[in-house]
Amino acid sequence: MPHTLPDSFDQCDPLQSALYTTLFTRRDVRSQFLPDAIPDDVLARLLTAAHYAPSVGFMQPWSFILVRDTATRQSLHQAFSEAHLEAAAMFPDEQRDKYQRLKLAGILDAPLSLCITCDRERAGKVVLGRTHMPEMDLYSTVCAVQNLWLAARAEGLGVGWVSIFQRERLHQILGIPDNIQVIALLCIGYVSHFEATPELQTKGWRKRLPLESLVMENQWDQPLSGTEFRQMIVQTQQSAEVIAHNTNKAVNESLLTTPKS
Amino acid sequence: MPHTLPDSFDQCDPLQSALYTTLFTRRDVRSQFLPDAIPDDVLARLLTAAHYAPSVGFMQPWSFILVRDTATRQSLHQAFSEAHLEAAAMFPDEQRDKYQRLKLAGILDAPLSLCITCDRERAGKVVLGRTHMPEMDLYSTVCAVQNLWLAARAEGLGVGWVSIFQRERLHQILGIPDNIQVIALLCIGYVSHFEATPELQTKGWRKRLPLESLVMENQWDQPLSGTEFRQMIVQTQQSAEVIAHNTNKAVNESLLTTPKS
Repeated sequence: MPHTLPDSFDQCDPLQSALYTTLFTRRDVRSQFLPDAIPDDVLARLLTAAHYAPSVGFMQPWSFILVRDTATRQSLHQAFSEAHLEAAAMFPDEQRDKYQRLKLAGILDAPLSLCITCDRERAGKVVLGRTHMPEMDLYSTVCAVQNLWLAARAEGLGVGWVSIFQRERLHQILGIPDNIQVIALLCIGYVSHFEATPELQTKGWRKRLPLESLVMENQWDQPLSGTEFRQMIVQTQQSAEVIAHNTNKAVNESLLTTPKS
Repeated sequence: MPHTLPDSFDQCDPLQSALYTTLFTRRDVRSQFLPDAIPDDVLARLLTAAHYAPSVGFMQPWSFILVRDTATRQSLHQAFSEAHLEAAAMFPDEQRDKYQRLKLAGILDAPLSLCITCDRERAGKVVLGRTHMPEMDLYSTVCAVQNLWLAARAEGLGVGWVSIFQRERLHQILGIPDNIQVIALLCIGYVSHFEATPELQTKGWRKRLPLESLVMENQWDQPLSGTEFRQMIVQTQQSAEVIAHNTNKAVNESLLTTPKS
């Protein structure tokens, strides 16, 4: 990936550039999966990336179920399809058609489904840092998901987080006990290309918000006062868009010309 | 940071090395904050990193309250101290002393407290991907936290996630409306050093778990069968430890000899 970054990132060292490039080019992939298997050494790095997430009280409450088996992936796809139908019915008329035209899961296309769970009792009943915010262990597990997602992007793998399921169906299909909470089902695989812009934006579902409108100072009702800092945030977001667009465009050209071995 | 990586990471390209190095050297910082201000351009990059997190239905439900004001940080510290006392009382006798000796928040030491919230109504009532797992927007916001945390590490900034609060006290101090959910309060600042190993491990609270014991195949009750893949995971985790230790050791030496301008 290119390391010449625009404007707000041009003073970054190579490590920073690499991280920001990965953050901005990561995509939620639904449609572009290739069937190529993921090598074991790559998978071991992805899982290690997840395992080095922060966790409340160092609980490390996560577990990983690797689903490569076709029959199991077919069952997962079936569970998704059932929930997807239910979901469509919930949208107002003017959104339903558009919702139904979106491809929202690549379970059958990607060679790997990965279920990431949270064991809420892994470190006993009283957990350091979870005494007042009981959901902290769930959040720790989400950090593991995000670490893995970024590692996957850096390895050239696409990830899609599929959340349209009846929870009990996942438990049933994967044999997950009741005291374990499913956090994420991810589809993972190599891709034909990475979208320059999130698909939900390209397809007119929803746009990227202006970051400066989401930042406040000292109190909820105090928007950013400093014009200079506000403008700096605007420019930094513009630069991030440029990085995302240029990098994924360059990566896609190389994916087209260099078939994966 | 060094880019010569051991064993399981020696085939990684520079972008991958940089990402993994950041993931493995990130720490939850409580005690090592320096008072130095965070430059606006760095802060703009951190916020942008957070804003490029994945979000369910492209909701982008997060907001950011930057708390640099001393009086407000003192109130936050007071709220933490109250909850910390309550928390200590919850631990069994044999853990309580150890718990009380741990420093768990650097709110007064770090120049910036950052509150990250989730607006559950930002994209209307029916949200694509949240129809069956209503907590997905909370999880999206956690992904933003983790993105920011990694960007901070790459920028040489420490972050500590403080979760020992009565939630209503945070709402009261920061004027956060009832329909907004607080996800994280982070302390952010430059540091004297980064620990090679998580403090909770060094201080005997809890150890890093062996990753291979947390990975299953196709079903919850099926541990990893392939000896070779299992061994590969063991080695990858060992390599991650080496990267974390060597990198943070080198960074700390340079922090000692090169005072921040």
